[in-house]
Amino acid sequence: MVGHEKQRQKIIVIGGGTGVFAVLNGLKHHFSNITAVITMSDEGGSTGILREEFGILPPGDVRRALIALSPGDQPLLAELFSYRFHEGSGLAGHAFGNLMITALERITGSFERAVEEAGKVLGIHGKVLPVALKPTYLLTLLEDGRVVKGESSLHAMRPEERAVVKRVCLQPSVSLNPKADKAIRNADCVIIGPGDLYTSTLPNLLVHGMKEALEKTKGTVVYFVNVTTRYTETAGFRASDFLQTIERYLGKGVIDYVVVNKTKPSVMRLKPYFEQQAELVEPDIENFREKPTPIVVDLIRSSGFVRHDPEKIAKVVKMLV
Amino acid sequence: MVGHEKQRQKIIVIGGGTGVFAVLNGLKHHFSNITAVITMSDEGGSTGILREEFGILPPGDVRRALIALSPGDQPLLAELFSYRFHEGSGLAGHAFGNLMITALERITGSFERAVEEAGKVLGIHGKVLPVALKPTYLLTLLEDGRVVKGESSLHAMRPEERAVVKRVCLQPSVSLNPKADKAIRNADCVIIGPGDLYTSTLPNLLVHGMKEALEKTKGTVVYFVNVTTRYTETAGFRASDFLQTIERYLGKGVIDYVVVNKTKPSVMRLKPYFEQQAELVEPDIENFREKPTPIVVDLIRSSGFVRHDPEKIAKVVKMLV
Repeated sequence: MVGHEKQRQKIIVIGGGTGVFAVLNGLKHHFSNITAVITMSDEGGSTGILREEFGILPPGDVRRALIALSPGDQPLLAELFSYRFHEGSGLAGHAFGNLMITALERITGSFERAVEEAGKVLGIHGKVLPVALKPTYLLTLLEDGRVVKGESSLHAMRPEERAVVKRVCLQPSVSLNPKADKAIRNADCVIIGPGDLYTSTLPNLLVHGMKEALEKTKGTVVYFVNVTTRYTETAGFRASDFLQTIERYLGKGVIDYVVVNKTKPSVMRLKPYFEQQAELVEPDIENFREKPTPIVVDLIRSSGFVRHDPEKIAKVVKMLV
Repeated sequence: MVGHEKQRQKIIVIGGGTGVFAVLNGLKHHFSNITAVITMSDEGGSTGILREEFGILPPGDVRRALIALSPGDQPLLAELFSYRFHEGSGLAGHAFGNLMITALERITGSFERAVEEAGKVLGIHGKVLPVALKPTYLLTLLEDGRVVKGESSLHAMRPEERAVVKRVCLQPSVSLNPKADKAIRNADCVIIGPGDLYTSTLPNLLVHGMKEALEKTKGTVVYFVNVTTRYTETAGFRASDFLQTIERYLGKGVIDYVVVNKTKPSVMRLKPYFEQQAELVEPDIENFREKPTPIVVDLIRSSGFVRHDPEKIAKVVKMLV
């Protein structure tokens, strides 16, 4: 990666959780102008406690994005930012980076400014923006009529409790951060996903103003479909189901390209996924409509976890801009 | 302060608490090679909780020294490091800098390394070294036979409980950090004090090996006497009493210069001190022996709290090296 010139196109990455980590981690080696737009509906663990006790926006997903964009010349600093306390009556479970963002929010009076300053400490190349400037919760309506409040409650459902998701919405409804709005409209490329469909990807798309910003962007909008399903959210989903769900909220014609993995890893590598009732997503492009254009390529790492390979994501994006 | 060349002599500042803050804060503008050697017997507040729950060396005084040596071009970072949480069931009372040192200790496995890395984040000019690599407690034997464990217990004594301090010692006894030992022996100037006599200054001098290092140093050893007394420790103390107490532990002939304030602030400025049973220290150099050489000068700030003025401390040190 050393020695080559980075491309200057304005890239927006929309997401949350670990999916956005892979995208940012891949793109940062190839693009110099990256803005991550991060979900504000997380309420689990350390983040949930800080949200409740400090009334701040959730720092967890922002922390992961900042670490993904950190330059790697200061590995100890990135490790510190990721560090989770295991001891201490009041500290155990808290991620250090979350505490830093919280303290900076209290000092500066602004969550956005706190994230910016944390980024400066880490020396990140790029920007991390909260998708909204007010915290919100994800409400999930299941087919059987139950309503689940919070992403973590949905994730915590046991297999026997699960039901098909009918609809999700944000409560309260929140508006798109004006800086994110502007960045999306002026982008050369907007990347959505991969990530948990209902709990990481859609919470961004549900923000008031996001649909309009994506409709108006002069950039190419690319959706990366997940490589595996998750039983609490997307059991049995094929690639076309992911896309269809996204388009149900975003409308048709907004997404320009949909990127789907075609590689089948060995049964051995998939075994731990089967045990968690997760499956490989089938690239059923025969069920796709004419638009968006499908890109069906090898996207997964060559060994280990069946996840997106950051470099393979970057390769696709470079091809599209 | 801008534009002048900093002096290169190797300066050691030994202390703890807020006294060392003033010294470092003054010297950093004039000297480029400063090493702070910091007491490891603190056990109050946030520091005490972290000491107990993580079994680490006390971070509090080290945190103050790091902030004092921070360059001032990143004021938000210094503010963050000093920030104390006021909310949160497990966080309230903790200083952010203490949590950072604690996390770095866990990651690197070394308190010394943690302090070094925290210094890098703050961009400090100089070094901060723990006086010992094992934590210890201050034991205070009072004239009436009571033994008080811990600095904070001594400070917390009410006026009616107080008694004259007979002797202090460290339990367990700890040895001088080899890096501090080397730095002291090779120093051009070693500064002791100002600071609470029994709870900030002496805990350093009691460390096994400190006396020998100070006897062997090729540098000038300077003791800054406090400007006010503290009723739990030094009620009624004149300058000669401070010096005599230090020499009781360190032996005679080790200190080369003793610096005493001669300025009497207005009664108005002293009023809050009287209310806390603190008094101005009398510069009774008539009671001094031939050695160390007394330097009796104006040392206090021109307004506000009756404390050492960092610039006036620096002026004296510049004169002596």
